[in-house]
Amino acid sequence: MKHLRSVTILLLAMFTLSLADEGMWTFDNPPRKQLKEKYGFDVTDQWLEHVRLASVRFNDGGSGSFVSPNGLVMTNHHVGSGQLQKMSTPETDYLKTGFVAKTYADEVKCVDLELNVLMEMENITDKVMEAAKGKTGQEAVVARRTLTAQLTKESEAKTGLRCDIVSLYNGAEYWMYRYKKFTDIRLVMAPEKQIAFFGGDPDNFTYPRYDLDMCFFRVYENGKPYAHPHFFKWNSGGAANEELVFVSGHPGSTNRQQTYSQIVFARDYAYPARLRTIKRTLDVLKRYAATGDEQRRRADGSIFGQENAQKALTGEYQGLLDAKLMAKKAAEDNDLRSKVNANPEWKKQYGWAWDSIDAAYARNTARFKELTYRGTYGSLASRALVIARYAAESVKPNAERQPQYQDAMLNRTLEMLYSPAPVYPDMEEVLLAERLKEGVEVLGAADPWIAAVLDGRTPDEAAKHLVTGTKLADVAFRKSLIEGGAKAITESADPMIVMARRIASIGDEMRMWQEKNVTGSLSAASEAIGKARFAVYGKELPPDANFTLRLSYGSVKGYPMNGTIAPPYTTLYGLYDRSASFDNAGDFALPNRFHERIGALKLSTRVNFVTTNDIIGGNSGSPVINRNAEVVGLIFDGNIESLPGRFMYSEEKNRAVAVHTAFMTEALRSLYDAGHIADEIEGVVAKPEPPKAPAPKPAPKKKK
Amino acid sequence: MKHLRSVTILLLAMFTLSLADEGMWTFDNPPRKQLKEKYGFDVTDQWLEHVRLASVRFNDGGSGSFVSPNGLVMTNHHVGSGQLQKMSTPETDYLKTGFVAKTYADEVKCVDLELNVLMEMENITDKVMEAAKGKTGQEAVVARRTLTAQLTKESEAKTGLRCDIVSLYNGAEYWMYRYKKFTDIRLVMAPEKQIAFFGGDPDNFTYPRYDLDMCFFRVYENGKPYAHPHFFKWNSGGAANEELVFVSGHPGSTNRQQTYSQIVFARDYAYPARLRTIKRTLDVLKRYAATGDEQRRRADGSIFGQENAQKALTGEYQGLLDAKLMAKKAAEDNDLRSKVNANPEWKKQYGWAWDSIDAAYARNTARFKELTYRGTYGSLASRALVIARYAAESVKPNAERQPQYQDAMLNRTLEMLYSPAPVYPDMEEVLLAERLKEGVEVLGAADPWIAAVLDGRTPDEAAKHLVTGTKLADVAFRKSLIEGGAKAITESADPMIVMARRIASIGDEMRMWQEKNVTGSLSAASEAIGKARFAVYGKELPPDANFTLRLSYGSVKGYPMNGTIAPPYTTLYGLYDRSASFDNAGDFALPNRFHERIGALKLSTRVNFVTTNDIIGGNSGSPVINRNAEVVGLIFDGNIESLPGRFMYSEEKNRAVAVHTAFMTEALRSLYDAGHIADEIEGVVAKPEPPKAPAPKPAPKKKK
Repeated sequence: MKHLRSVTILLLAMFTLSLADEGMWTFDNPPRKQLKEKYGFDVTDQWLEHVRLASVRFNDGGSGSFVSPNGLVMTNHHVGSGQLQKMSTPETDYLKTGFVAKTYADEVKCVDLELNVLMEMENITDKVMEAAKGKTGQEAVVARRTLTAQLTKESEAKTGLRCDIVSLYNGAEYWMYRYKKFTDIRLVMAPEKQIAFFGGDPDNFTYPRYDLDMCFFRVYENGKPYAHPHFFKWNSGGAANEELVFVSGHPGSTNRQQTYSQIVFARDYAYPARLRTIKRTLDVLKRYAATGDEQRRRADGSIFGQENAQKALTGEYQGLLDAKLMAKKAAEDNDLRSKVNANPEWKKQYGWAWDSIDAAYARNTARFKELTYRGTYGSLASRALVIARYAAESVKPNAERQPQYQDAMLNRTLEMLYSPAPVYPDMEEVLLAERLKEGVEVLGAADPWIAAVLDGRTPDEAAKHLVTGTKLADVAFRKSLIEGGAKAITESADPMIVMARRIASIGDEMRMWQEKNVTGSLSAASEAIGKARFAVYGKELPPDANFTLRLSYGSVKGYPMNGTIAPPYTTLYGLYDRSASFDNAGDFALPNRFHERIGALKLSTRVNFVTTNDIIGGNSGSPVINRNAEVVGLIFDGNIESLPGRFMYSEEKNRAVAVHTAFMTEALRSLYDAGHIADEIEGVVAKPEPPKAPAPKPAPKKKK
Repeated sequence: MKHLRSVTILLLAMFTLSLADEGMWTFDNPPRKQLKEKYGFDVTDQWLEHVRLASVRFNDGGSGSFVSPNGLVMTNHHVGSGQLQKMSTPETDYLKTGFVAKTYADEVKCVDLELNVLMEMENITDKVMEAAKGKTGQEAVVARRTLTAQLTKESEAKTGLRCDIVSLYNGAEYWMYRYKKFTDIRLVMAPEKQIAFFGGDPDNFTYPRYDLDMCFFRVYENGKPYAHPHFFKWNSGGAANEELVFVSGHPGSTNRQQTYSQIVFARDYAYPARLRTIKRTLDVLKRYAATGDEQRRRADGSIFGQENAQKALTGEYQGLLDAKLMAKKAAEDNDLRSKVNANPEWKKQYGWAWDSIDAAYARNTARFKELTYRGTYGSLASRALVIARYAAESVKPNAERQPQYQDAMLNRTLEMLYSPAPVYPDMEEVLLAERLKEGVEVLGAADPWIAAVLDGRTPDEAAKHLVTGTKLADVAFRKSLIEGGAKAITESADPMIVMARRIASIGDEMRMWQEKNVTGSLSAASEAIGKARFAVYGKELPPDANFTLRLSYGSVKGYPMNGTIAPPYTTLYGLYDRSASFDNAGDFALPNRFHERIGALKLSTRVNFVTTNDIIGGNSGSPVINRNAEVVGLIFDGNIESLPGRFMYSEEKNRAVAVHTAFMTEALRSLYDAGHIADEIEGVVAKPEPPKAPAPKPAPKKKK
């Protein structure tokens, strides 16, 4: 399970305080009442602060936590695998072989990983509302954008922290989240992908499960391991069946508060289109991967990502096709709307919002094909677009620029642009060609965008022309264009830059049209519905997920599955069973060490377990902790029944799937000769003295 | 999975030759073409004869096979468990402890088990059709019944075999099946129920699975082990993935050839009623079982039977609630009907049948409540009814009697009546009371049948009065009544007999009404549809199952399950995983020997496996054989996805579940100290000399 970007613009809708273990709660509004009533647990401010500060956001889409006093961070292998891929070469493939650093000096620096810790949260709703007072539509949007850009800049200058404006409850609240940001992150330990992702795509999003989906990094600051006072203590005993547990992490997005008509749009337009594109992309990737071992290695991460998205979106889409679920969503929407309409004051303030949303969606739908299929693919084309747009934006006053080119964001934009991560032009070429073919099929070759990219060529020819002709794979070339400014970019003859200049204005027209005709009225209407919900139900449920830190609660629990019951835990016996059941082959093959060292393992060791915690993509890598804030597990997936959870939570069958702490330490000690890491997280050696200022080991040299 | 009696009267409908591994084929019409085309296998008459003669019918509802030259028969533990229960006492509970006979002399004789081997099949369709020529309705039914009673009597006298009239293809064909009948059957080996039914009700009808659901009996004739030349050789290697395998056994009933309106009736009336009654019965049984260890032992088999039926019928019912499946059934029915109507000759001969069935069902539905809820419960009440009816029937001419009182059947009726199997009056009392309560609720206390049973008492009082007052638990008393004839029965003051005399005439009225208004026209119409199917499609698919010997073919194959894939095999690793996953408790506890001797086991040994073979309840205990007619497994269940198979087969997910031969021999040798049995079935000792005329060991003395 990976963090999945929301396929639709995020909005509104369900409420009523439930007794189910529902909700991804912000740390300013924890479910104190539910925890007290259902589990007899009094959550303290001190407990919340400790948990928040020991939690980590992986900015490329996942979660993690500090698990030692020396900056050791635990996350999922599949959260770390992007970095593992970037630091691998054909000769040194960490995904294939795994990795263990014996000493600090052996730890390998990540290519472009950023971790964040949420230090402060400030409610700035009043200021944001004030800025837009008396303004509507586009004017309000710009006024707020100007204010928030200014607030962000001031705050970053003042605190030295990364400051993000966060909109919650459909925009009924605005917060400033301030993060401590780490960029010197080094790989400490990763098992082979074969066991981290045991069962492959078939077992992905399912349970019973047997995965060692873990990965350890160390946070460095000023060249030294970062000694963070807030880390989770380790509990290899794990949690008992039905024990209260928490998950602290960064769920990416949910759509639970959307109106019924928004969900119908997702069902009828967004999901079918997205799933068709994914299928085409996967077909191309698999054909490419089949052409050689190195191609297989290069495509591996993308295939995983696409298959993961395909399975997740298919599960979500099945939820939308479920008549019962849709009827429930409709009933919830109707309940809120009828309560709003029954109160004259509410009706006046919020009653208009539903129709406004429908009208915005109708406008959006009319241009749905253009908005969806005018696209490109790959890091080369997308970087060309960033550079071409930089030429236009950099000459404007700060407040009038698109957000990612404003001062507060520009550094992040350029950091991404300058990432030294490897580029695979041959793979990008086939993917870009496929994307163009789909564009031609849906929009026709005469569509201005398509025509501008093709420039009289076929999709295959155009992709070849663009990818083989560009020098953008070279970081220095990218830098030279930016540093040369508008003039250098405008005059560049690099074919990708030329293409990007041609399509930039078409893209701008679409973006501006959407801001004017869709986004503005949609965000105003969504905000109204968010406020209506506060008015009708109070602040009793958490806001939709948006990759900010959340706390969920629940308990270890099996569930009814396919005619029988799924157990709360699985064991090492089960790992060997599933492997042997498929003749130890393919997705079910085990790394050799699992065969060679089976005698050293206690086979009844718990491997994975399930809890009722309400999570979603982005929570990958989150710690599962008990009421003493000890780690008892590591979230890495949801079961197949949890996928409609994007729209609705069901305690009966929705389960979070986690790696058991016992499996992690048993594996470190008995399989990976990494007893020193097990000692560090178990606190066996209280505080090992870090060697003085170790130099980071450079990643192995890349082959072009 | 147990043999389940069909809940509705069996009828018609789907056809068209498919390439799926579909069908439970009669041995006179094997799927030669499909086997040749799909698997390249030429089935010979010799192969068919050998397989037929090595196959065994367990008359209380299951299948088995000869697996040694010395009369050793393999079946499921759950097929043998009725006998195990009957031969157990509180002190010697074979279900709990398991059983292994070290020598022939240790083998324990079954209480009332009858096994059959199908020796001959004769097509008597022409004779039966001739008998009813020019007659309709009730007259035709009686004419056929008279003829078949006479043919049966003549054939049994002539051959010394058990002769059954078998109706196939909705009555479009009639056959005389002649069986060699064995009644001296002795228990050789049974594991503990705990491992035979590992996973209990939760895992029943599901997969992946880990059950040792086996049981071995020996057939004796004239006091000696029966040396049958036709037995299956053993193959502990099992079958490879995707290998062609066959199942030869006795599927109980399917309803695939019913019309769409019959299935709708089942969905709207029969299933909901049956499921409600099962739920009530289970509740009562569980309350009874909770009152003590001995009560738990007594109720155990009934609870299993009711839970098994509940799960099976729920799965079937889910199929009927599936709009897609129902649409497919409707389309098939329409296809046949429209082809019939498009041909003037067919239309004349068969076109009327659909409306006739609908009319018969409408009449039946009008009295559905009486026909369903005028019932009693338990062996005492049902025996009282047999005895009361014997008084009335025995004085009539043979051909006019109800079938089970005609000469040809009377012996079997009396055998069942005189069975020395233990009776548990306290359990029968609570079940009878519950049945009467349900009757009162649905029909009212004034219903003549209900009133006749209650005789002014409450249901609880009536059940107590009847059960505690009767002497029918005593076999000698039952015999004395039958031998005393009509006079003794009519004058008996035994309260059960008095009650039975009162309700007999009400039962007769219902039976005669149903024969006149429903059964007669239904069987004529069904027969017409069976003939129509021959006319339209030819004899290309097998008839519905009816507990006669059938051959099904398929291959070992996993399937898509709950978001992932189910493996073709499971292993001993998985058994220990599932047990440990539930803390080795309850339905997932293992017998001690599995813990004590784990070191002696090869944990990668295959335990259970799945095949695409088309089977249904009654197939329990059937051998799975390869193309060399070697045993590679033992059918014991179907997966949850197979349950709608009563109405429609789907190769994608419908799977038969079998015990692997490797697990059986590994368990015999390494867990049960029964290497001598493993040797016998593996042919290690070619033909051990049986000891001379061993005396059967009597079952342990019963406590009353």
